[in-house]
Amino acid sequence: MSHLNIKLENIAYNYNLLKEKVSPNALCASVIKANAYGIGAKQAMKILQQAGCKDFFVALLDEALDLHEISKDNLFMLHGIDNNKEAKVVHHHNIIPVLNDHHQISIYNDYAKILGKKLPAILHFDTGMGRLGLDLDDVQKIINNNFIDYKYIMSHLACADEPQHPHNQQQLQMLKKLRRFFPNSKVSFANSSGVFLGKDYHFDLVRPGCALYGINPTPGQPNPMKQVVTANARIVQRRILQKDQHIGYGSTHLAKKGNQILVAGYGYADGYPRSLSNFGKCYAQGQYLDIIGRVSMDLLIIDASAVPEQTFQSIKHVEIFGDNIKIDDLASQAKVIAYEILTGMGKRTLRNYL
Amino acid sequence: MSHLNIKLENIAYNYNLLKEKVSPNALCASVIKANAYGIGAKQAMKILQQAGCKDFFVALLDEALDLHEISKDNLFMLHGIDNNKEAKVVHHHNIIPVLNDHHQISIYNDYAKILGKKLPAILHFDTGMGRLGLDLDDVQKIINNNFIDYKYIMSHLACADEPQHPHNQQQLQMLKKLRRFFPNSKVSFANSSGVFLGKDYHFDLVRPGCALYGINPTPGQPNPMKQVVTANARIVQRRILQKDQHIGYGSTHLAKKGNQILVAGYGYADGYPRSLSNFGKCYAQGQYLDIIGRVSMDLLIIDASAVPEQTFQSIKHVEIFGDNIKIDDLASQAKVIAYEILTGMGKRTLRNYL
Repeated sequence: MSHLNIKLENIAYNYNLLKEKVSPNALCASVIKANAYGIGAKQAMKILQQAGCKDFFVALLDEALDLHEISKDNLFMLHGIDNNKEAKVVHHHNIIPVLNDHHQISIYNDYAKILGKKLPAILHFDTGMGRLGLDLDDVQKIINNNFIDYKYIMSHLACADEPQHPHNQQQLQMLKKLRRFFPNSKVSFANSSGVFLGKDYHFDLVRPGCALYGINPTPGQPNPMKQVVTANARIVQRRILQKDQHIGYGSTHLAKKGNQILVAGYGYADGYPRSLSNFGKCYAQGQYLDIIGRVSMDLLIIDASAVPEQTFQSIKHVEIFGDNIKIDDLASQAKVIAYEILTGMGKRTLRNYL
Repeated sequence: MSHLNIKLENIAYNYNLLKEKVSPNALCASVIKANAYGIGAKQAMKILQQAGCKDFFVALLDEALDLHEISKDNLFMLHGIDNNKEAKVVHHHNIIPVLNDHHQISIYNDYAKILGKKLPAILHFDTGMGRLGLDLDDVQKIINNNFIDYKYIMSHLACADEPQHPHNQQQLQMLKKLRRFFPNSKVSFANSSGVFLGKDYHFDLVRPGCALYGINPTPGQPNPMKQVVTANARIVQRRILQKDQHIGYGSTHLAKKGNQILVAGYGYADGYPRSLSNFGKCYAQGQYLDIIGRVSMDLLIIDASAVPEQTFQSIKHVEIFGDNIKIDDLASQAKVIAYEILTGMGKRTLRNYL
């Protein structure tokens, strides 16, 4: 059947490569939200723990609850808490919330006050991302939350994948100002691309995500990371056309008599972009093969006329992306980003962890 | 949290509406592959059984195995079998394979021969879809498979959503010729849109999928189906900007001081198209609200300045699609099809079955 081969050792390799890039004083966390970008959060967490990672980030409470049993050290939850019940749940499961606004802070502080002890959190400031986090003007109001132990203050880079973008420096300067108000808190700033902006950006904890899973954190430069996922589609049928024939929904492609056609069990329900209809390529037997006709929900149609007939009849799988079709290239062809390809990978495709 | 509300009764309504359209002699099956187009195959199967459906189609063997325990009547598997082991598995689980080529036929026939009894199957001919199925010239070779009981011959329409397309009639005529070779087999042809091409296309069994789940089977005409899914995104943070501020990755939008910003916990990892960055709309409190900045993996940023401040502060959720934002409209705005939106719906979003 169609399957994803996931090289866990390459996640460990990528983690170690990032760690080497980072200031010796800074910790290297791992972002494993969205099921570790579609790869499998539990499997990713275990291999990253073996590689020495002790700090993990997810987005949602449900994601944290799925992982807290295998979490040994710090499990941080980016979206924070919305009510007293969620405060209780994170506390009971040793999950450390990122607090993004006064509403979240006051809920957590009130909960801790009744408990009578300080609880750990990360305080999130928006230095220019314009998404989650507190404004700088809020600093004064925050310093009186006596029942929260702000382990870290954090912020998030908006343009880290464009090293020359002036916003990077502006965000950095703002964060440096902010940290003076929190002399007892450590600082976390860099995402994957931020790691490559240099040691100024590393502070005490970096938070790479995409680079762990093989996405290029330095667009426009060679990708220093190893590919983690190879997607292979099972061939459901091999056909040699007995006459000229229209292919797929809408009859958008005319294939010729004698063409060797592979029908592969992989479609947009498995995460393959339908926008690559009549445009994308697969790989088999040393050849790049054209996708012809529209991509359907469960099937791709491929012209394999370039392959010798005997070889053609023996093809069991084609590579959708992996060693020969880089995920970043596939994404750019589909005018999406590699993150979308990874997180969109199908729910019904077998994952082989190697 | 963010959640999908799924109105199962509307699936039953849609099923009944399709059944009324169909010739009295034809059965109405349900296609529930790809987890019933993202909605939940088990839940869809149960409500459709209650509505009187006895024939169900999936694509993959794994999908069939997930459902065979709640299947009471006919469970058909479109991709067919690849080897003797799969023949045994389908037989032992009462799954009826669709056989798409000589390879699949001979495996199934050999298995049945050893077993010493006839086994049921559907025989699939390609009359113009150019995807799975046998060629018409193959008819003579097939009639000698003595151990297969061809319950149905089937074919699939390539252009059923374009009623004027000449390929519809051509496919129909070819299927009519074919059926003469199989006097003991029933015939299945129409998908959702095919049901609306008229009774000529219905034969003995129609196989709607998308229309059951609210997708318009008659593009360009009003949608006769009821919407099944509403996606609601949880608001993680409400902000009133204290200064002009760039929004999201790449700083692609400049929001103004005083703007009321909602940050919603829903992103492309939940299936929201990133192509709707700075372009899509959400719905809350009687207003359509602009998505600003880039869509990120777990978050959307929304300008809710049009809403009175008190109301703004009380917004807990926004509609991503549903009663106010039709899934077909969302898809067309994102230059995709509604099927992609449905099958791409996130794995981590709570599904409420109503």
